[in-house]
Amino acid sequence: MAAIVNGHAGGTIDPADRGLQYGDGLFETIAMRDGRARFLDWHLERLAEGARRLALPMPDTALLRNEIKRAWPRGRGVVKLILTRGVGERGYRPSPDPRVTRIVSGYAWPADIESRSLGDRLGICRTRIGRNAALAGIKHLNRLEQVLARAECDDARMDEGLMLDDREHAISGTMSNVFFRLDGGWVTPLMTESGVSGVMRRAFRFWAAEQGVAVEERDVPAAELTAASAMLVTNAVIGARPIRIFAGRALEVDPAVVRFKAWLETQ
Amino acid sequence: MAAIVNGHAGGTIDPADRGLQYGDGLFETIAMRDGRARFLDWHLERLAEGARRLALPMPDTALLRNEIKRAWPRGRGVVKLILTRGVGERGYRPSPDPRVTRIVSGYAWPADIESRSLGDRLGICRTRIGRNAALAGIKHLNRLEQVLARAECDDARMDEGLMLDDREHAISGTMSNVFFRLDGGWVTPLMTESGVSGVMRRAFRFWAAEQGVAVEERDVPAAELTAASAMLVTNAVIGARPIRIFAGRALEVDPAVVRFKAWLETQ
Repeated sequence: MAAIVNGHAGGTIDPADRGLQYGDGLFETIAMRDGRARFLDWHLERLAEGARRLALPMPDTALLRNEIKRAWPRGRGVVKLILTRGVGERGYRPSPDPRVTRIVSGYAWPADIESRSLGDRLGICRTRIGRNAALAGIKHLNRLEQVLARAECDDARMDEGLMLDDREHAISGTMSNVFFRLDGGWVTPLMTESGVSGVMRRAFRFWAAEQGVAVEERDVPAAELTAASAMLVTNAVIGARPIRIFAGRALEVDPAVVRFKAWLETQ
Repeated sequence: MAAIVNGHAGGTIDPADRGLQYGDGLFETIAMRDGRARFLDWHLERLAEGARRLALPMPDTALLRNEIKRAWPRGRGVVKLILTRGVGERGYRPSPDPRVTRIVSGYAWPADIESRSLGDRLGICRTRIGRNAALAGIKHLNRLEQVLARAECDDARMDEGLMLDDREHAISGTMSNVFFRLDGGWVTPLMTESGVSGVMRRAFRFWAAEQGVAVEERDVPAAELTAASAMLVTNAVIGARPIRIFAGRALEVDPAVVRFKAWLETQ
């Protein structure tokens, strides 16, 4: 389906848009079912936080909700929403009064998602993730690290790649957040120096808190992961996916993952 | 002047272009005079190196040279060339056979460049620059750090901002490379963990080597800079600009800078 650009279906992008020129913008990837966007309030909250951090004017959320629904009104699908700092002059300096570009695109639901959710293998990417507190946590458009890391997963070796930072701390998958079962509790890396604080990561923590399942957010040196009994990767489209094999070693599927997936079906 | 997109003047960008979606691409900013692009061979060499590092097919350079000239055929101007990994499916994974998008835009020469080159003040940005060897040195489209840092310079405090990494090492200006006069020699930061290895940086090093002026490339802790007697910032458009005031302290204009600027006028 054609993208909706500033409300105009089939619109194109000005080559001078700062989203293209510098990756100067944000995005959200949202699971849709029959016109309803899953965890939409949380997507919009994260978007607003990113806009605040980048000093980007946040569009009216009623307008965004409407365009998201327009982009995928029926059945199961995925909507990707991009906000950029709009068309600019040459040069990094942002305009004090930018006219934000909104790009809302609908995509068919990936048919093979459920079959891929069995037997998942997580490997460790060679591509490292840089650290910068100013950009950590938010879902901005500077994603070359993920592109390079994802390219490493395109072989028989692994389905998803775990990205480490330069301290050899685990941060996230190339397109997912990660949870590790360590010493009988769940642990997930801090998103304060790199990574994206995912909406499905929030959903798992929300569910876990309601269920009394402990999830600790802390630094996770990769060396600790040899002791993990279970692992979970999450993103807004795949939901929750238990990892069966990490770096060649078989893992358990923790009952909490099964229960969370069942709860997720009701959302 | 309208951008030339894949050879088509006035072309626009597909919202699904990976340059917009992920900053998945490269750029060059080139000084033009009467259809001649300054240091074009070096720009194309850096572009080819970036393409190799990102596994992006490098377009035919004769085609690029032609489009650059078309974008600014007469007088003084600036041409910005962008290459992206082209239109893609949703998801970070790059296509094994991408169709690269070429975007070539001409801009008028910034009229105030020479007046701004006097009395330049360099300050230190709060925004840090992240480290990632996989992306260091090349001029890729992930430039949010520079955007945030440049926004700090938009006041009476400084004309250009020096960016440090998380080790408090000096890396570059927000839109320039930097050279420091320390202990009677020139020093410039390594571009192996962050920063862009600029064409004008290469030009200064090339000229210095020909003139027997020593330039050392090494780690530069910011704490050393209190001892600098002179500083120089370079980029492809401004050329070379002596810094008069660094963090409130007056600096000398080194004779080498004057001589380099004179040489640059002949290029």
